[in-house]
Amino acid sequence: MQFPMVRGEIWVITIILPEYQFFSNVMITPDIDEKYIALALELAEKGRGKVEPNPMVGAVLVKNGEIVGKGYHQVFGGPHAEVHAINEGGINCKGATLYVSMEPCAHYGKTAPCVNAIIDAGITKVVTTVIDPNPITSGRGMQKLKDAGIEVHLGVMESQAKRLNAPFFKLMQKGLPYVIVKWAMSLDGKIATHTGDSRWITSEESRAYVHKIRGQVDGILVGINTVLRDDPLLTCRLEGGRSPKRIIIDSNALLPIDSRLLNTINESEIIVALNKGAQQERVAKLEQLGCKIIQTKDTNGFVDLHDLFHRLGGMKLTNILVEGGSRIITSMIEERHVDKVMVFIAPIIIGGEGAKSPILGKGVGKISAAAKFHEISVKRFSHDIVIEGIPKY
Amino acid sequence: MQFPMVRGEIWVITIILPEYQFFSNVMITPDIDEKYIALALELAEKGRGKVEPNPMVGAVLVKNGEIVGKGYHQVFGGPHAEVHAINEGGINCKGATLYVSMEPCAHYGKTAPCVNAIIDAGITKVVTTVIDPNPITSGRGMQKLKDAGIEVHLGVMESQAKRLNAPFFKLMQKGLPYVIVKWAMSLDGKIATHTGDSRWITSEESRAYVHKIRGQVDGILVGINTVLRDDPLLTCRLEGGRSPKRIIIDSNALLPIDSRLLNTINESEIIVALNKGAQQERVAKLEQLGCKIIQTKDTNGFVDLHDLFHRLGGMKLTNILVEGGSRIITSMIEERHVDKVMVFIAPIIIGGEGAKSPILGKGVGKISAAAKFHEISVKRFSHDIVIEGIPKY
Repeated sequence: MQFPMVRGEIWVITIILPEYQFFSNVMITPDIDEKYIALALELAEKGRGKVEPNPMVGAVLVKNGEIVGKGYHQVFGGPHAEVHAINEGGINCKGATLYVSMEPCAHYGKTAPCVNAIIDAGITKVVTTVIDPNPITSGRGMQKLKDAGIEVHLGVMESQAKRLNAPFFKLMQKGLPYVIVKWAMSLDGKIATHTGDSRWITSEESRAYVHKIRGQVDGILVGINTVLRDDPLLTCRLEGGRSPKRIIIDSNALLPIDSRLLNTINESEIIVALNKGAQQERVAKLEQLGCKIIQTKDTNGFVDLHDLFHRLGGMKLTNILVEGGSRIITSMIEERHVDKVMVFIAPIIIGGEGAKSPILGKGVGKISAAAKFHEISVKRFSHDIVIEGIPKY
Repeated sequence: MQFPMVRGEIWVITIILPEYQFFSNVMITPDIDEKYIALALELAEKGRGKVEPNPMVGAVLVKNGEIVGKGYHQVFGGPHAEVHAINEGGINCKGATLYVSMEPCAHYGKTAPCVNAIIDAGITKVVTTVIDPNPITSGRGMQKLKDAGIEVHLGVMESQAKRLNAPFFKLMQKGLPYVIVKWAMSLDGKIATHTGDSRWITSEESRAYVHKIRGQVDGILVGINTVLRDDPLLTCRLEGGRSPKRIIIDSNALLPIDSRLLNTINESEIIVALNKGAQQERVAKLEQLGCKIIQTKDTNGFVDLHDLFHRLGGMKLTNILVEGGSRIITSMIEERHVDKVMVFIAPIIIGGEGAKSPILGKGVGKISAAAKFHEISVKRFSHDIVIEGIPKY
């Protein structure tokens, strides 16, 4: 680090001459410690899969350089992060600084507004990352705190905070769920053999990770062909894992009455997306068996994906994992509905001109026109490699 | 670590009562330190790409727990690792222990036998990994040292030593070069767009790594279709990098007279592998232009790969990098000529039913029959991911 003394000197001035408070508005003030926001973000992450459609939020209460309380939003409907931290802080809240990973809420929802609790507790400074994109609060939380004479700071680790809650931001700002597309392929880019065999390309450890992800999303989506071929359950089979809603793109209402999906309808909701082409009788039967029917606009005889995602967003599905098959995934990539890809690569070679690739369609003509991804991360499960990336649209 | 004192106590006994030397034959003796073999292996690695068809070898000379000399085989024809270490050790060699990453040679080759130098230097103990698979030495080195009264130890870090020199072991034991197959593909397993565009799928950093590998192998091999399509140079374009021999599988002697390959024949040798079907006139022309012609057995009108690799092994090519295209790579995988795959994956999606996959052919019908790889390593170059693996045959 360069010039550590310069920062140190300013810090001394701030302490000795507190009336020079205006310093804190023109530079990173030395008494705001990013590490507490980092900790708040880490705490927030613990709520993944349990708080949606709320955002994940963490909070850390600091007094005289010591943590006197912390908390995170643990479950949808339960107390917010700030309240947990304040409860832990008790009488120490007076004069303390609250680091919170998103603007505190200012509205009555499932719980009372956090800003009231913060003011009542005697907290004198609030440091946060970003304004809550929820239009009910959006900026009002910060304003109320300021009005109550609390010193507020915004913008610390903003990009990390936005990344953590990317699905919440997308739902709030565009009314659309965050779409994660997943596929598993061999080292030579095949998702099945030429005879159609695909069980199992990846290791048990990789499949356990998929179940973990299933437990963190609100919906899991597949095409009817995948259902007809594999008769999947699409539930989260990890102990204590929450099973997502199961969404089937089934333009012609072909979902078999005796499928394992319909046999387990009590385990988690089944949403059948179809369009006007579907036989009314079949639709009525599915509805009678308990499926939720979403009838979308028609695009060349198929479900209109944009319409579907708007409907799912309207139902407050924050994030959706798309598990196949190729045709669905290809459409989602082509129509730019995808927010993240998750590619499992097993160290095997399948070969075969007739073996299926993950993406079909027409494809690009020039490499320069290919869809590009960034924020690449690589994980390993047993011998498998998992590449995750965010599309650059 | 458990029971550190037990090892410590035995060590004390060995020191106090040196006549109890038989202990050293029944357990890992405490005065053999694996870390020096690890260092010798690390030194050996520095010779990669410069010593072939010799093995890479490193040596470390230790006296009273201190390193008094070290060295590695730097260049084919130059002094061996042991000689460098002994020269550095000077009078300290007397009574020292030599750690060397392969059995010292016992034969006159480009240089005098290392065992003579070891004996003459007064070294009293030699610790190594594995017997030299070269039939000229194979075990004779160890025997000569023993006969001279030197204490010898074999088998330390044996598997690491074999892995380091896997190409040398293959050439010595089977008379075949070590075959590395490389391809670059998109996240959706395509090596080109449906129009055939493939430049460039990977980043500059990935391509620089390929040039580094080119500089470490004796031969680089492609099929004639790759030459006709891309008109490549196939040289190592890193400064100071050695360009490998360029091997073209060209059953019908179609290599164009005006190709960039033939225009650069003075930069590194061109080997054209063909079979009896090739027009004699064309073959004569290529030979006249300076190409080395290898006429192999005929397999369904194509070059017989097994025959070709035997001929290349006979020419002492230790390792060969295969860079395409799909048909050649498919045959190599199917016929099990491959010792290592190196798959570059770029975070882009190309798509397209008509876009080419890296492996064609018939492929396997069942996932359980797929070719499996182990010893998986993952590297990253810019945004690209490189997966390397060894086939389990």
